Formats: sequence, structure tokens, C-alpha cells
Amino acid sequence: MENGIAKMETPTNITIKGILGMLMANIDYENKKKVISLGMGDPTAFSCFNTTSVAEDAVADTLTSQKFNGYSPTVGLPQTRKAIGEYLSINLPYKLSPDDVYITAGCTQAIEVAISILATPNANILLPRPGFPIYELCAAFRNVEIRHFDLLPENNWEVDLNTIDELTDHNTVAIVIINPGNPCGNVYSYQHLKKIAETAKKHKIVVIADEVYGHLAFGQNPFVPMGVFGSMVPVLTLGSLSKRWIVPGWRLGWFVTTDPNSMFKNTKTVERLKKYFDICGGPATFIQAAVPRILKETSDTFFTKTLGILKQTSDICIKKVKDIPCFTCPTKPQGSMTMMVKLNVSLLKDINDDIDFCFKLAKEESVILLPGLTVGLKNWVRITFAAEPSFLEEALERVGSFYHRHSYDTNGSI
Amino acid sequence: MENGIAKMETPTNITIKGILGMLMANIDYENKKKVISLGMGDPTAFSCFNTTSVAEDAVADTLTSQKFNGYSPTVGLPQTRKAIGEYLSINLPYKLSPDDVYITAGCTQAIEVAISILATPNANILLPRPGFPIYELCAAFRNVEIRHFDLLPENNWEVDLNTIDELTDHNTVAIVIINPGNPCGNVYSYQHLKKIAETAKKHKIVVIADEVYGHLAFGQNPFVPMGVFGSMVPVLTLGSLSKRWIVPGWRLGWFVTTDPNSMFKNTKTVERLKKYFDICGGPATFIQAAVPRILKETSDTFFTKTLGILKQTSDICIKKVKDIPCFTCPTKPQGSMTMMVKLNVSLLKDINDDIDFCFKLAKEESVILLPGLTVGLKNWVRITFAAEPSFLEEALERVGSFYHRHSYDTNGSI
Repeated sequence: MENGIAKMETPTNITIKGILGMLMANIDYENKKKVISLGMGDPTAFSCFNTTSVAEDAVADTLTSQKFNGYSPTVGLPQTRKAIGEYLSINLPYKLSPDDVYITAGCTQAIEVAISILATPNANILLPRPGFPIYELCAAFRNVEIRHFDLLPENNWEVDLNTIDELTDHNTVAIVIINPGNPCGNVYSYQHLKKIAETAKKHKIVVIADEVYGHLAFGQNPFVPMGVFGSMVPVLTLGSLSKRWIVPGWRLGWFVTTDPNSMFKNTKTVERLKKYFDICGGPATFIQAAVPRILKETSDTFFTKTLGILKQTSDICIKKVKDIPCFTCPTKPQGSMTMMVKLNVSLLKDINDDIDFCFKLAKEESVILLPGLTVGLKNWVRITFAAEPSFLEEALERVGSFYHRHSYDTNGSI
Repeated sequence: MENGIAKMETPTNITIKGILGMLMANIDYENKKKVISLGMGDPTAFSCFNTTSVAEDAVADTLTSQKFNGYSPTVGLPQTRKAIGEYLSINLPYKLSPDDVYITAGCTQAIEVAISILATPNANILLPRPGFPIYELCAAFRNVEIRHFDLLPENNWEVDLNTIDELTDHNTVAIVIINPGNPCGNVYSYQHLKKIAETAKKHKIVVIADEVYGHLAFGQNPFVPMGVFGSMVPVLTLGSLSKRWIVPGWRLGWFVTTDPNSMFKNTKTVERLKKYFDICGGPATFIQAAVPRILKETSDTFFTKTLGILKQTSDICIKKVKDIPCFTCPTKPQGSMTMMVKLNVSLLKDINDDIDFCFKLAKEESVILLPGLTVGLKNWVRITFAAEPSFLEEALERVGSFYHRHSYDTNGSI
């Protein structure tokens, strides 16, 4: 037993939650400053981000009906699969079947299913850098080799498609595209997504389209689901209610085979997927049962309000970041809830890197930002702009003070 | 991509849900008989099994409080971990810490975590026969070799401990004990559990104690949690609200390191476990938040009522089974919601085996029983007795008619 445990490799990945926990532990409560965390992608921490009463009422009703205390099929309730299939089909040039849709415990479980189901011996997967660390962690647990491609900061964080050829071989199983993007706030154009699909097609790999921030686009580019190119290349679409409905804690996600030509799905893969879902816990039945009503009855006003706040807070963020000389934001965010800013440590006299910056900032200013290293980019910082506007302004003003105290510039405030 | 998919092995295991689906498809609705399923372990299908209003109110309150729409820590909310640790400690000779408790999406996810975390290269695991097929499926997906030990029908379905020595080697990581038992309805004595613990200690393997039916004991033996022997051998205790609170669809389970001497848990395994939980979806935050109140406020009357019904329905089952000559029940169930009966096909003129029996029974009588092969015993049948008493009686009377029609006995009713 102990020998067995000793043999196990624990992935060495830094996790967002791990780093944030350490940053929180580094807060100096003596300074009496209100703690403002712009580190986590959970808008529910701020009162301007609330879900709609439609969603809450729907879940309360399915709970109290007592009709949904029992097991659901492990792939999800039929009516929930149907409703999500119809919801996603609105933006597609073809219609998804309920059988294409598998219900998951949040998008996290959808990621886990996607990686596990593709984890053949010697498999490798193409992941974006910067990216979302759960992919790295999941690939490590499932013994899938990770190969990173770069997102280009000066080019709206588009995929560096030139490098895909040399990264790919016959053991490459998939490329992961997060759009709208975490951590970059990118929203890819139709043309860029098409190029990605063509590249994936050329290499005969699946596209894992992480659209957990689907529809949260407030800039120039509209949100285009990757599934639009499903006839060209099989797409596994991952999503959830978490972000658009502001209920990440409800753990209601989906894994969808957006594959009208059945290039990926066939009797064997469908059988394997179904069996894999037998070992997954899945989300609560009564929350699943509320989904058809939530999707049908949520008003556009609710979505418009959320987008309005995100536009406002991202603008505040851009404006404030410009006043902090050690920060550069190469690309204005167009979607999601986070953005990346570049940190110029050479302007700071006693800061080594992004990790050092964030730890000292937490201690001195009680402001939490996520070190870029956590998402794959050293000397960058991820800022979650899905925050109360006044808190966001205050937090970034404190970052400004912090800069002045630590800069070589003699006008520092201390 | 297609090559990749072709390489993947799909476990060939029969699943309970798979077989039940096929049996349901075999029902002949022309005969106008009401369908009665005694195949699934989900009592919510019957109106005599309802959860308590305490549980429902607690969840409704945490939902509508709007305080729990955000993410929980991936290992679970601190208050939930604490409450479950205290709940389980009541029956233990030591106190569990909140850090021993990890919250899972039902007991299914707890099983998945247990197997995955122990899945070292070349690992093997000891599973009971008959058993619960999710273990087999999970082990297959995680490349863990399965070695079966027998449960002895004539001896209260106790573990055949004599065979454990020859089954075990240095790659054996754990033994799974389901108590109260599914599918057998066993409730093991303190002495038998102690012998299991001694055996596991001798072989330096972990005990995975599946106690999803914990406290559902209505016979001679009281329920003794395996964790009582946690000082002797490390125990991973798996459980959930599903059965005792009759809410399997809420997906609220736990994975607990019942290991006061830290034989299993150490810095490395705890770090690995925590990281593993980062890739698990986990249950809804608001359901987690309701757990402390549910555990504190549920009255003994509710539990007593459930046990009373289970005692009554298991008695009905035993009595009715005695009237069906092709059935033998070697051991009266003492707990859980299911029992195993032996099928004597030699008394039946046109039935090949348990599968054939159950398919023909579904077609002719609209009664669903689970073929024993699904849980590892050919020519046995699993009956779920957690059913409305009148339905149970009617179902087993129809099984009696079925027997008479198919038996060599000329008194057959057709």
C-alpha cells in the first residue's frame, strides 16, 4: 500500500485555486484595507452580478415538486438534453439531436470527460498558452502529453497557427480552443475560427471548443460557436450555465458532440461515452429538470444587463491599467470576464517577477491579482474585471500606489 | 483522430442501467399490465419513500439565500466537510477532522476518486462477487486489474476470507467492502468486519468501505462502520445522502480518509487528492451548504419510519419468494434495499438462464428484476425490495404465475 502510494506521481502543476489560497494567506489584515480579489473568475462575489429570478424560481420549483429526487440517466435527463441541443442549435447551420448532448457537473467535468475519452496510449493534446490550468492538470492525471501553442497578444490573442504543423503528429488527438477566452478576454472572428477548423481538419484532430463563456461578447466580434464548422471537423463543445447565468456553483454543464457528419461519433465512441458517464457523478436531477424552463424563459434584458456591466468594467480596467506604468494591455478584451496585462518588472526596484508582484501586492494593498505564470505566461498578470465597478477602481488605484512605492521613479508616494 | 478512436478499448462490462434499459424495451404494453420495476435501487419511484421536509426546506433556503451560487472549494465547503466529519465520528472511537472529508457528486464520484487515486501502474483491486458493477467499470477505465473474492450466500454473504491470501500480491492496492450490502442485503457483524480489517492489515492494503447504505440496517446486526477499525488499517469511507435521506438525485456524497494514524494520508497523498478534486465537477454549492442543517435537524422518526418500511417490504419479499419454487433465498436480508435470490432454471422448461428469465418476465408480466449476471452471479436474480408494499406483492405474484406457466409442473396456470 505505502509502496503503491509512493509510486504515484502527483502532477506538479500550479493551480489557480492553490495560488489564490496562498495569496489570501499573505494578506496583512493589520493594514485594515478591505480585501478585493480580482483573482478568481467567480462574479457571484460581487453584488452587481446576480442570476435571474427565472433561474432561481425554476430550480426552486423542480426541487419542491419532489419529482426529481431520484436518479437521472447518467447522460442526463432527456428533456434537459433536448433543451440544450435546441439552445445550441440556434447558432448553428444544422440541428443537434438530444443524443449529442451529455449533461455534466459543470464545465470542469465536461473537460475531464473530453480529455479522458481521448486519452489513448501515447496521446498528445494541443493546449493554448496562456490557458486554463484544469486542462493541464487533467491531461497529467490521464497521462496525455501536453503540447502548447501560443496565443498572440499583439494579434487579439489569436492562435499562432504557423506552429501547429510542427506540434502535431499522428498521436495528436485534439486542439483546445477557449472562446470567448479565459484568461485573455479574446473573442475570435468567424474567419479565425474557420482557419482553426481547417488546420484541425488537415491534421485529423478533434477541436475541443470550450465555450463556457459563450455569448459573453461585448466588443467588435460577435460570439461564433466553433460548432459552426462542425461539418468540416468534429467539435466537442463544452459549456455550462455557470457564466452566462452567473451560477457557477450550480454545476450544470454540458459536453456536446457537435459533429453532424459523425466523424467522431460512431457506435463505438457513443458506447464508450455512455459508459464513461456511468462512472461520473453528474449534476443534481432537479437542477437538470429546471434547465428547459431556464433556457426558454430567461429574458434578453438579463443578458443585455450582464454584457453592459462587463463592457463597463472592462473599460474601467483598460483605463486604469493605462495609468499604471508597469502594466501594458496589448489587446482590449472583447469578452469573458478576464484579461491579461503585461508586467514590466524592469521598472520596479524590488520585484522579481509576477509571483513576487502579486504576493507583495496582496500583503501591502490587500488586492489579489493572478500571477500570469499560473496560466502559462511569466511576467503577466490576469485581472478579472467581472467585479463591482467601484471595487475595481479602488483595487487598481491601490495597484497604482503599489507601483509608485516600488518603482525607480522618485515620485513614489512613500 | 479516427485511428486514435479505434485504439480505444471500451470496457465490455454489462451495466445495471444498460440491462434495465433493455428489459424496459422488452415490455409488452399490449398486455395492459402496470409496469413494476424491482430492478433499480432508487426508492424515490415509490410514494412511500419520500425525503424529509427538513432536507427539502434546507436546500430551498440555501438556494433562495443567493449566497451559494458561486464556486465552492473543489474539496467541498468547509462547513459541509465539518458537519459530515462530525456525523461520521458519532459512530467512531476517534474524531474525524474536516480535512478528512471530501465532498463528491454522489457516491458514484466517490468511487471514481477512490479507484483513480489508487490506480498505480499494474495495480489490482479486490472486488466482491456479487458486487456493484460501477467498481468494475471504473477499474476498467483506470486500467486497474480486477480480482474477485466471493461473498458466501449460505453464510450471511460474508467475505470468503480464506481466498484473500492467494488473490493478493504486492500490486494489490485495496479491498472493497459494501456494507450494508448491495446487492445482497448483508449487514456484517463487528467480528466479521474486524477479520476483514485484520486481513487487509496483513496484506498492507487499503479498505474501501462503501457505506452508501450506512444505517439502513433493520435486522439482527447493527450497522458498524468500517472506520471503527481505522486505527488498524486505513479506510476510505464512501457515502452519501442518497439512500438514508432518499435523495439519490441530489448527488451529495463524500469520500473520507478514515485513517487516524495517517497510514494512508500523508502530505503527498493529500496533495494528490486535492489536485484530483480540482478536475472533478463536484456537487452544487447550495446543496452542500444545506448539509449541516440536514444532518443536525433530521429527526429519528424519519429514519425509524424508513427502516420500518424496509423491514416490512423485505419480509413481504421473503414470504412471497418462498411461494415461488424456482427461487431460493439463502439468507434473509438485514439491510440496504436489495436482496439476491437463487434461480433454479432446471425447474423451468423453456428458460435458459437468469437473463432469459428476466427478459421473458418483463415481456409477459411487465415486471422488472435484475439478472444476477449483471452483479456477477449467473442464475441469480437481484430484487429491490424498497418498493410500495402492494406493488411488491403484486409483482411477486406475477412472478409466481410466470413460474407456473413455464414450469414442468403440470399445474401451470396456462
